[in-house]
Amino acid sequence: MGHEPGRTPGARAAVVDGPGDGVYGYGYGAYGDGAYGDGTYGDGAYGETPHRGADDGIPRGERHAAGVPYGPGDGTAAGPVGRTAEEVLAGYLHWHAAEFLRSLRLHREAGPDAAGADEAARQLRRAARRISATLHTFRPLTEEVWADQLRAELGWLSGTLAREQACTARRDRLMGALQRLTGRAERIERPAERGGRGGRGARSARDGRPAATGSVATATVPAAATEPDAESALAAGAARAGALLDRQLTLARTRAHSAALQALGSSRFHAVADAVAVLASEAQLARRAGEASAGEVLPPLAEQAHRRLAEAVATLPLARAGHPYNAAGLTAGHHQDAPWHQVRLLVRLSHYAQEVIAPEAIDPRLTASGRALEHHRDAAEAAAAAASAARTPRIAPATAYALGVLHADQRHEVEAARYAFGRAWLPGPTTERTG
Amino acid sequence: MGHEPGRTPGARAAVVDGPGDGVYGYGYGAYGDGAYGDGTYGDGAYGETPHRGADDGIPRGERHAAGVPYGPGDGTAAGPVGRTAEEVLAGYLHWHAAEFLRSLRLHREAGPDAAGADEAARQLRRAARRISATLHTFRPLTEEVWADQLRAELGWLSGTLAREQACTARRDRLMGALQRLTGRAERIERPAERGGRGGRGARSARDGRPAATGSVATATVPAAATEPDAESALAAGAARAGALLDRQLTLARTRAHSAALQALGSSRFHAVADAVAVLASEAQLARRAGEASAGEVLPPLAEQAHRRLAEAVATLPLARAGHPYNAAGLTAGHHQDAPWHQVRLLVRLSHYAQEVIAPEAIDPRLTASGRALEHHRDAAEAAAAAASAARTPRIAPATAYALGVLHADQRHEVEAARYAFGRAWLPGPTTERTG
Repeated sequence: MGHEPGRTPGARAAVVDGPGDGVYGYGYGAYGDGAYGDGTYGDGAYGETPHRGADDGIPRGERHAAGVPYGPGDGTAAGPVGRTAEEVLAGYLHWHAAEFLRSLRLHREAGPDAAGADEAARQLRRAARRISATLHTFRPLTEEVWADQLRAELGWLSGTLAREQACTARRDRLMGALQRLTGRAERIERPAERGGRGGRGARSARDGRPAATGSVATATVPAAATEPDAESALAAGAARAGALLDRQLTLARTRAHSAALQALGSSRFHAVADAVAVLASEAQLARRAGEASAGEVLPPLAEQAHRRLAEAVATLPLARAGHPYNAAGLTAGHHQDAPWHQVRLLVRLSHYAQEVIAPEAIDPRLTASGRALEHHRDAAEAAAAAASAARTPRIAPATAYALGVLHADQRHEVEAARYAFGRAWLPGPTTERTG
Repeated sequence: MGHEPGRTPGARAAVVDGPGDGVYGYGYGAYGDGAYGDGTYGDGAYGETPHRGADDGIPRGERHAAGVPYGPGDGTAAGPVGRTAEEVLAGYLHWHAAEFLRSLRLHREAGPDAAGADEAARQLRRAARRISATLHTFRPLTEEVWADQLRAELGWLSGTLAREQACTARRDRLMGALQRLTGRAERIERPAERGGRGGRGARSARDGRPAATGSVATATVPAAATEPDAESALAAGAARAGALLDRQLTLARTRAHSAALQALGSSRFHAVADAVAVLASEAQLARRAGEASAGEVLPPLAEQAHRRLAEAVATLPLARAGHPYNAAGLTAGHHQDAPWHQVRLLVRLSHYAQEVIAPEAIDPRLTASGRALEHHRDAAEAAAAAASAARTPRIAPATAYALGVLHADQRHEVEAARYAFGRAWLPGPTTERTG
């Protein structure tokens, strides 16, 4: 995971609107370099973590390839008009199956190169997510037994590969936060620090306020000067809290790593790989998929996915979340997060469904709100990690105090992410600019 | 300090726009029942604390009297037109000197009645603040040696009397916050709970969003159900943290109480009382005050006070504060608060200066931003109290953890108050409504 000092959220944003865009529109641009898709497993594609640096490190050519979920022909074509559902679905599935196999090869070749293996695993999960999302949304047009079974296996594989990177990301996020809270530059150097602010940077960049980057700058300055009282009490425990979290999360990551290696060696994995290899040339779709026109049968199913999303969003306390500093993040506790996590998954399904039927016209709200919900998930998990670390027996009070502050800080970010989601989802998300 | 279950921020607001209004305009209404002036010493006039209840408890007649900073004649007159500076200044000073003496008598009569004594002390400080602010702003029109000396003594007295109530308010605020964080209804019953939310309630009421009160309601419901993991870890320490804070702040209050009693018995105090008694009938003003017309010499001095305020505000990081969830509250630490506290004092001076020259046309921004900065000060001090409690030797880790969460929560409120200030001060504070 390379640390790239040069990267700022701003620069990042520029990259996001990079190569993909010209050809495939905002949606693809954002997807192309994994700003959304890869973030799904908390590998910091939005800049919470130095990880992002590595993500940016991949060569243009490869990024561009990654930026083409399937054939440029389809990308530029105005959706599925004049083609059968089978052509569209199979095309999308073939493409991502090929992506899956390609990244699998990369992963094998990467060997000891951790960054390369990470990136390959990300690409693999990215493809796997799209395949299973498509099999789920357009299930009625597939051979359902096959589809369900493949989806289950892809889910297992993605999950297994995701854990390691999730641990890394969580550790980086918490270290960054601790260091931001104490204003001390030890343990993690600048890039991570920037990473720690990336979330906000990105958000403010989205708000389009010049003040945002300014705020990032100003924040680092006073933080450097620590105050005798509370600051020092915090600093005293922060180092030990950091060491404790580092131990715990590094151990978890090691476990996840060996679990992943084991999975990649298992016959179960080889069965998935074979199934995807077949999928790359032949998708098992229902007969009617070959008869019906894509424009006829696909949109209703995508619409259904979107409706499920809209219904789930309707149950969220958006009125409260839209009210900044409502303190719900801390008050409510984790059992409040579940519906938001659920919406995150539904956003993804809806997004991938649009990728299939109208890749050039993806609702930017989906990207923005998806991003906000990634932040939400990451912050919630980081907060939980801090809380559980605080339950370690025989820690010093100062350590526990720092973990308490850290927990509250991350729950605060959870609340901020809900606010950002509301801004992204509800009409009139731009009012903040005039505020 | 009476707990009045019926009171909600909304009801409170209604009271604020109460009796005073018809006659003296918003400014006076707000001042009349101490919604702003009294809040200056954190006695919860905005509803953070049950204290507010007692505040509401005073009889209409008295409230109305309190609602008339000086003679109705002046209140209704369109400012200082056609009168000499001396008439206007002396009138204002006489009135508040009389108020001072009246509340002093009340305080003496209250004796064992704690609530009555509290209220009397609030009224006394309220008058003292206005007298010294006037002597400060219009210093060139007074006999400066006398003015400076009286101001110093009034400052000493106000400060001494303020400490006790500050400790009570801080204790109530922290207990309310702890109970909000853990969602447990022990130690403090509903009204206090409401009080704990009052700040938000008030803020949202100001934003005029129906969602706000709804959010208060919804917040209490999930909070009641606690989650096994982090919630319970927090709950475990919260009770002990609450007990610790209770001990420490009650001790501090007792000390402050005896200090206040000592002060009220001191010859230094009697000297102040005598000086104010003289002031009630005769203000020592410079000769030119008697010659110049009020409309000529007073506005420039008030304008100067306002300019000092504007300059101080200009140095605040409002761009950053106006960006919700900027995490500056936690990051920056206490040394960042000083300029905000300074602005709070300048807002007060500017407000009282307007009271003198144009009581019926007080800029609502002053009231709103003053209120926000009260929240800021209260939250900052509460956070500091939590942090210092966490440095108590030999506390349990769970206690320290809870205090860490509490500290972060209050710093979060500091950040929220800065945001609210920006909304109140900068043009277009209503954008939030459309958000």
